[in-house]
Formats: sequence, C-alpha cells, structure tokens
Amino acid sequence: GFLQLMQQLTVVGDVSRGMFDAKMQQLEKLGDYHRIVVIEDVKSGRVVATGSIFIEHKFARSCGKVGHLEDVVVDERMRGCHLGQRVIEALTSFAEDAGCYKVILDCKPENAAFYEKCGYSKKEIQMAKYF
Amino acid sequence: GFLQLMQQLTVVGDVSRGMFDAKMQQLEKLGDYHRIVVIEDVKSGRVVATGSIFIEHKFARSCGKVGHLEDVVVDERMRGCHLGQRVIEALTSFAEDAGCYKVILDCKPENAAFYEKCGYSKKEIQMAKYF
Repeated sequence: GFLQLMQQLTVVGDVSRGMFDAKMQQLEKLGDYHRIVVIEDVKSGRVVATGSIFIEHKFARSCGKVGHLEDVVVDERMRGCHLGQRVIEALTSFAEDAGCYKVILDCKPENAAFYEKCGYSKKEIQMAKYF
Repeated sequence: GFLQLMQQLTVVGDVSRGMFDAKMQQLEKLGDYHRIVVIEDVKSGRVVATGSIFIEHKFARSCGKVGHLEDVVVDERMRGCHLGQRVIEALTSFAEDAGCYKVILDCKPENAAFYEKCGYSKKEIQMAKYF
C-alpha cells in the first residue's frame, strides 16, 4: 500500500516488485543516513501516512549534519487526524537523535501553516531544474 | 583553503585536521551519492569557488533520483567572473549523468536571479527547524 499512498503526492510511475526490492536494498545500505516511517491502519492493513528523511554530512557547522525531510503524505481519507504531525515528529526526533543541527524541507506555500504547527519556520526559497 | 571559503557562506566552526579527514572518509564511502567541486586559482593556490551535490534515492518517479545542490560559494574577491555558474553547471551535469530527473536547491530570494541564469526555476518554499 506504500506506493498507492505515494501516488497521492506525486507521479510514482511503474515500479515492479523487483525495482522496489532493489531500491530497498540500496536504501538499507545507507543505514543510518536514511529512514522511512509509515503509519498503518491495522484494521484495514492500509498504509495511511508516510514520510522519509535522509541525513546529509557537511563540513560547515563543525562538520555538522542536516536532516532532509521528503515525501510526506497522508491518505486523503485520513486527513485531519494529526497523522502527518506524528510522521513529522518521528522523523524530526530521528534527525535530532542522529546529531543534526537542523532539519529542512520544501513544501507548497499552502502547507507552510501545517509545518509551522510542527515547529518549523519559513526560511529560503526552493529552485529546481528538471531534465 | 576550502574551509576558509566556506566561512563566507556560513558558520564553519572549529574543524580540526582529524575531523576533516574523518568527514572526507565518510563522504568517500557514499561514492557516487556525493560530489564536491572546487575551483582553484592556480596562481595563488587559493580555493575560490566550491559547491556540492548529493543524490537522493526515491521510490517516486519509477524509483527516481534527485540531486540536492548545497553549499555553493564563490570567494567575494572573485565574484562576477562566472565561477559560480561553472560550479552549478558541473554539479548539474553530474546529477544528469547520474540519472537524476531533477536537481533542487534552496537559496535566498536575492540569489534566485543567479540560479535562473543557470536554468533553474522557482518552485516551493523551504521550511527549517533548528535544534
């Protein structure tokens, strides 16, 4: 159910079982640099919320570490139950425990208020180049 | 000269030779997931521009990859010589060759015009939480 949920966030495209397993193995090699959390509705067995974080190693800030929050999505049928907040809290704590001096994320302007409730503040602007 | 240059961008803090070497080893383990470029002024031996990129592995976009551009800085005595553009071009090409479907970065609003010259467009907003 993870990829079905991701489709509510972005274009997932074709991902075969083999591709999924290969990607999992790649991510497992990253170990403590990467974490995905999911919230499962145990009654239905559906994945209803997810988010991921990876840890960047910098030279700045005394060789500091930065958490990058990515791909946060809550099932549209389950919004308003604070599941998103739970995901953010879990990933933010993971980054803090890993010794990060900050966590950053990019979001649509209309989602800024949600992240502010989670203790985040507006900072810079995101630029992107697509190939 | 790399850390001296980084100080023009952000707080570097105390970084001993040992810390620097340990961090380099960590980054080298990441192999193709991470790249730092520097431009050196061969006359003075000074590092006059730098930037880094790391590759994030996603499930979205058919298990796609995203390049994250970080820590771009040009020596203040060398600005206006298109060194920043060279750094961006090199790192963007690295990400494209690595199979990324996009490269993203966060910057101050006043630097957006520079990145637009490099082919980037404004996208979302950045949120941050400091510990």
